[in-house]
Amino acid sequence: MTQAPSRTAARRLARLGTETAFEVSDAAAAWARTGQRVFPMHLGDVRWPTDPLIVDATARAIANGHTGYCPPPGIEELRTAIATDVGRKRGVPYSAANVSVQPGGKPVIGKFLSSVLNDGDEVLCPRPGYPIYESQVNYLGGIVRPYRYAPADGGFVLDLDSLRAAITPHTRVLILNDCHNPTGACCSPASLDEIASLAIKHDLWVLSDEAYGEMRFDGSFDSIVSRTGMAQRTTILYTFSKRFAMTGWRLGAAIGPPEIIRSINSLNINAESCTTHFVQRAMAECLGRELSEPTRLLRELDRRRHSLVAALNEIPDIHVQLPPATFYLFVDFSRVLSRLKCRTTDEFMRIALRETGVSFCTASHFAQTHNDDGAFVRFAYGVLQEDELAAAVDSLRRLTG
Amino acid sequence: MTQAPSRTAARRLARLGTETAFEVSDAAAAWARTGQRVFPMHLGDVRWPTDPLIVDATARAIANGHTGYCPPPGIEELRTAIATDVGRKRGVPYSAANVSVQPGGKPVIGKFLSSVLNDGDEVLCPRPGYPIYESQVNYLGGIVRPYRYAPADGGFVLDLDSLRAAITPHTRVLILNDCHNPTGACCSPASLDEIASLAIKHDLWVLSDEAYGEMRFDGSFDSIVSRTGMAQRTTILYTFSKRFAMTGWRLGAAIGPPEIIRSINSLNINAESCTTHFVQRAMAECLGRELSEPTRLLRELDRRRHSLVAALNEIPDIHVQLPPATFYLFVDFSRVLSRLKCRTTDEFMRIALRETGVSFCTASHFAQTHNDDGAFVRFAYGVLQEDELAAAVDSLRRLTG
Repeated sequence: MTQAPSRTAARRLARLGTETAFEVSDAAAAWARTGQRVFPMHLGDVRWPTDPLIVDATARAIANGHTGYCPPPGIEELRTAIATDVGRKRGVPYSAANVSVQPGGKPVIGKFLSSVLNDGDEVLCPRPGYPIYESQVNYLGGIVRPYRYAPADGGFVLDLDSLRAAITPHTRVLILNDCHNPTGACCSPASLDEIASLAIKHDLWVLSDEAYGEMRFDGSFDSIVSRTGMAQRTTILYTFSKRFAMTGWRLGAAIGPPEIIRSINSLNINAESCTTHFVQRAMAECLGRELSEPTRLLRELDRRRHSLVAALNEIPDIHVQLPPATFYLFVDFSRVLSRLKCRTTDEFMRIALRETGVSFCTASHFAQTHNDDGAFVRFAYGVLQEDELAAAVDSLRRLTG
Repeated sequence: MTQAPSRTAARRLARLGTETAFEVSDAAAAWARTGQRVFPMHLGDVRWPTDPLIVDATARAIANGHTGYCPPPGIEELRTAIATDVGRKRGVPYSAANVSVQPGGKPVIGKFLSSVLNDGDEVLCPRPGYPIYESQVNYLGGIVRPYRYAPADGGFVLDLDSLRAAITPHTRVLILNDCHNPTGACCSPASLDEIASLAIKHDLWVLSDEAYGEMRFDGSFDSIVSRTGMAQRTTILYTFSKRFAMTGWRLGAAIGPPEIIRSINSLNINAESCTTHFVQRAMAECLGRELSEPTRLLRELDRRRHSLVAALNEIPDIHVQLPPATFYLFVDFSRVLSRLKCRTTDEFMRIALRETGVSFCTASHFAQTHNDDGAFVRFAYGVLQEDELAAAVDSLRRLTG
């Protein structure tokens, strides 16, 4: 019997990272299969019906035969609808030429970095932060220069000093995730001004991951792209996933300068050809309309945010503030860990799953293996109902109190 | 006013190719916008209703809330359904661990090559052939070693001598596209035996692009993976696009050895996260069932194949045989070109669009800038009805006769 070719994996794979949150999913699923109750608070997902107008428009698009290929950059109608909506909210005159439709927001990370990064170029990445940023930078031969989100007033702020300190003559890209996963923090307008100045001064490309930009409870919508001189150097990661409860539909877009969008379109041609045609038709029809479900969802998430923060603060030694955005809470459990004699948050995570069924990610799932500021875990509240969240925190309190 | 960052595109982009057929689409669309009738015969698309059982299952999957994230390798039910169906037809005992669901068949090319290729590794690619093979090999730092499809008995055969001659000690991968785009040729069982022997002898990985494997009119279904020792070294590019008239749905899969599939799953995590969830549910439900539309489609394409071949043979100096598979005809127009004083097939293509509205690709869109064997154009007959095909050939005959 012959074997598989003796020369095994390509060397580039050794540089590819992953999203270890999927391993948390697997552990939670395995625990549930043994008949145990699991409270899934690890997923960046929203369990919510997609708006019926979108569902109806999808059925109509299929019935009308929009089931064949469409252009790799996306259909003109959707690109124009996105350009109009995104441009209006940010005060930037985008057109279809600024938009490349994607199967979700995530593909924008790799395609944008592939378009601008050469070997040895440095990329400023948030820590804690979405792990795929660092995975793709390393995969593409770049060098990660982390900057920090720091605890402040019970919440978090982007640490501008750490950002400034991370810049070198080799820095080429800044990845900004304002309305930040996992902390829920948003930059002040003054901070965004300052970050924009740094980007211009150091001639950086910017990836502005705005996946949660419209999932903001306090303060007004804002984007770095609204600052003078930023539209030419910023590519927005846009997604329908979170705001519209469409994570499984796979629809998003890159919005940026035409030369970046052309390059991303070439990568579309070489990768998935195009994004699901009838889903594009449906959203082209619905994006400008009044939809009830996204509004209801945001109101419901705000309720959950308040009750979850209140419940967590009942646990001894837990102090958490209301973050202004996202559906995440990033909470310091260091004193609880001492009490339970857990050495790491990941050990605590495993114990919590086994003892309470509550499943969550920790800072280690967000590129932060070490943290002087505390021992943080992330609770996502997009999946469970309010009463389930209360039961989950109740179990945690009994374990840790 | 500040400018975009002065350092422009990443160097890797200079190596990225494209599918120039999209430019043919653009030219045809531009011509149609001037009010001219266009006969689109350039597209590898099928204009055919998706089976109503699949459409119904999709609506049910959305209604049942399968609208959130699913695992990056695809849902277990679909992976098992694909493993069963593909394994049964090829005599290979595949399981879910051999399957990574993709948004179409095309992503398999780049993800497979990313998994096995290092700088300077050589890849055997068919010429003429689907241009994305060569684009991705070059992009990933590999070296293209073309092998040939040669005219024989009015059709085409994979030229085994040219394949043997292209192999060197640096050859690492063979890309095989049996049931071949653009020629419609299929290898004989003896040829597949011989190609399998070469792959084993030279310790090659094989990408078997079987996009058209089940769109065969003459002869029996066959796959290189059925040969002893080949399942361990072969990754199948599988797609629902053509056979099920689902090109715009974006659903396909990589099927191969677990170590390759694990690597492709990691690339899924870093790229699109997962493929549209409810589409996966629908096909998991429908793949094993009797579906009427795919059968009707294949019968209709066979009718078109016969009538199109007969009509083309009425054009002076055109001699074309019935190819056994695909919905393409690859036809030598060299004598017609001489008569029309066209220097290249691309010049002929432009004249034909302007004078007749018939739009098609040429050998140059399939990585073949020069061809000693003739001046070939590709007619795709998946989009137009039989009477439209007749009208198209009639116009061509008037232009060229």
